Amino acid sequence: MDRRSFLKTSALGGTAAAASTLAAPAIAQGNMTLTMVTTWPRGLAGVWDSVMRFADNLTAMSDGAITVDVKAAGELVGAFEVFDAVTSGQADIYHGADYYFTGQHPAFQFFTVAPFGMTAPEMMTWYYAGDGMALHHELGEIFGLKSFIAGQTGAQGGGWFRKPIESVDDFKGLKFRMPGLGGQALGRLGASVQVLPGGEIYQALSTGALDGTEWIGPWSDEKLGLQEVCKYYYPAGFHEPGSALSIAMNLEVFDGLSPAQQKMVEMAAAEDHQANYALFIANNGPALQRLKNTGIQVMEFPDDVWDAFGQASKEALDEFMGDELFAKIRASAEASMNSTSAWTSVSDAFYVNERSRVNGM
Amino acid sequence: MDRRSFLKTSALGGTAAAASTLAAPAIAQGNMTLTMVTTWPRGLAGVWDSVMRFADNLTAMSDGAITVDVKAAGELVGAFEVFDAVTSGQADIYHGADYYFTGQHPAFQFFTVAPFGMTAPEMMTWYYAGDGMALHHELGEIFGLKSFIAGQTGAQGGGWFRKPIESVDDFKGLKFRMPGLGGQALGRLGASVQVLPGGEIYQALSTGALDGTEWIGPWSDEKLGLQEVCKYYYPAGFHEPGSALSIAMNLEVFDGLSPAQQKMVEMAAAEDHQANYALFIANNGPALQRLKNTGIQVMEFPDDVWDAFGQASKEALDEFMGDELFAKIRASAEASMNSTSAWTSVSDAFYVNERSRVNGM
Repeated sequence: MDRRSFLKTSALGGTAAAASTLAAPAIAQGNMTLTMVTTWPRGLAGVWDSVMRFADNLTAMSDGAITVDVKAAGELVGAFEVFDAVTSGQADIYHGADYYFTGQHPAFQFFTVAPFGMTAPEMMTWYYAGDGMALHHELGEIFGLKSFIAGQTGAQGGGWFRKPIESVDDFKGLKFRMPGLGGQALGRLGASVQVLPGGEIYQALSTGALDGTEWIGPWSDEKLGLQEVCKYYYPAGFHEPGSALSIAMNLEVFDGLSPAQQKMVEMAAAEDHQANYALFIANNGPALQRLKNTGIQVMEFPDDVWDAFGQASKEALDEFMGDELFAKIRASAEASMNSTSAWTSVSDAFYVNERSRVNGM
Repeated sequence: MDRRSFLKTSALGGTAAAASTLAAPAIAQGNMTLTMVTTWPRGLAGVWDSVMRFADNLTAMSDGAITVDVKAAGELVGAFEVFDAVTSGQADIYHGADYYFTGQHPAFQFFTVAPFGMTAPEMMTWYYAGDGMALHHELGEIFGLKSFIAGQTGAQGGGWFRKPIESVDDFKGLKFRMPGLGGQALGRLGASVQVLPGGEIYQALSTGALDGTEWIGPWSDEKLGLQEVCKYYYPAGFHEPGSALSIAMNLEVFDGLSPAQQKMVEMAAAEDHQANYALFIANNGPALQRLKNTGIQVMEFPDDVWDAFGQASKEALDEFMGDELFAKIRASAEASMNSTSAWTSVSDAFYVNERSRVNGM
């Protein structure tokens, strides 16, 4: 995939938006209602909290001048149709995870998470103090979008297995559920990678159609009942070390907002990134303890498996380096990550290790 | 110190505010100017960015209805007089670090950082997804304040030494600069603890009046030139593992804002906490590299010194357990920290260690 094809898409998207009468949000007496489509089922724990937090705070700050009509996946358009719905002006905003849109441009991967990439604090650093937000805007604007990260799950768990992973060979032929570039990396290790929606995972594990799966983290995984069908749980994984969610507004709609309202959108999204991260990690600790109480084994992948994860992740990303913008965004993200890590690994991380040791945690 | 004395202070504060004509912010044609006093010298790197980010975003979101007249320390009142200036209505808001106000109530410590306490992500979790914000409000309201954390330095470095620390005995008689409860803990290990303002540290080290010091982190420490007078640098320290800055508004002024404006204050403060944390850790990595290039030695305290830090920190906090509110807030903060750490230590932290190993960082 090269940059030219995206520019072509962009031109079409731009024309469509300009010609459409749907792009204007419903406005009555100075108030407007923005239609927000999402990639999520209504009420999905953690993720739906991010959706509603953004919407409610935008309404509160604008004193009701902006209300948000929130649609779950399938209510107006399907989960993966939200991107086109907003670029075309059928809807005003989407809330989703931008790596669902790597078909539109592979660089969207970096605005959720890259395999073997950044943690949530590292994403904060790149996005808010480095070039991350500007690059997100540059990428989104190709498609007629104003994009912001909003919501964050923190590190996703390494996943659930029926048998322990003792070497890289154990992935050969393993029927494992993992979407995105992480899944592509795992496929390079010989796994038979499957992509199933959350609602189908439990049954696939029960019948043997799957040998293992990742989902989100202890809080979310417990709700699917994965502890009932897999006894080995790996808390640390390589595929999504800190997954940002995001919103994107139709660029024409965003440009039609007042500067004050545009700032409210930016602030509501940023606040949501931090608060939603907090919500996930606040819930994962107690959930992990409850899972342990059911008798599951908490495991760690051995070092040589981590070596293979690192190499396979690099190769999966390298596939897209022919695209100029992908290469630019990857270079920016990795430089920021390495620079941040050079400080946090010797300060925060060292401190936490010592604190855990001293406190006997 | 017991709770009764704070309640008495509170009642006086409340009366003073109610009787004062100064408490009403300057309002003209529906617009208002809020006077914000700060504990910082104008332009102090990182910290002053937090001040201006909060002020500018509040003005932008309110479309200019709220402007903020920002005063550096000494311009209207002295650094440590900002608390009284806002409770009395002489000013409308302060920006500072709440542990400067442990004389008013010792529990303010927890809304900056406790020694051997929370990192920045752990603070996010407690404050935004746990009871932290509600407890901050409860504490502030005793004094007629609406308090929010805003700004965050991340983990502060362990500090600068002329000679390596090889055992706890090396602290005996060591003239070391460290303020607050961290300094009190270090005093329990036999150090001769000093508290000097930033501008006096370099000279004190040059003349031998100090044997060592902590300041903030590589970015800030480099600006003081500490690498010229101390050759041993310890990036990880126990005393401030993640220091939040904060704003507090006169409660009567806050209650006079519209609900939309109150939400803008809350959002601007929260966004500032995340963005300022990002700014500090983005700058610390490159600064640490530059410091290394000057030939300093990057060191780690040995395990038995960390054991002593942990014990001394606990004892320093225990001093205040006779106060009911202090005990309640400490219990809440520590329960949240332990619960969060039970997840992040086996997920994020484990992942980052493996990534660093694989990438040869």
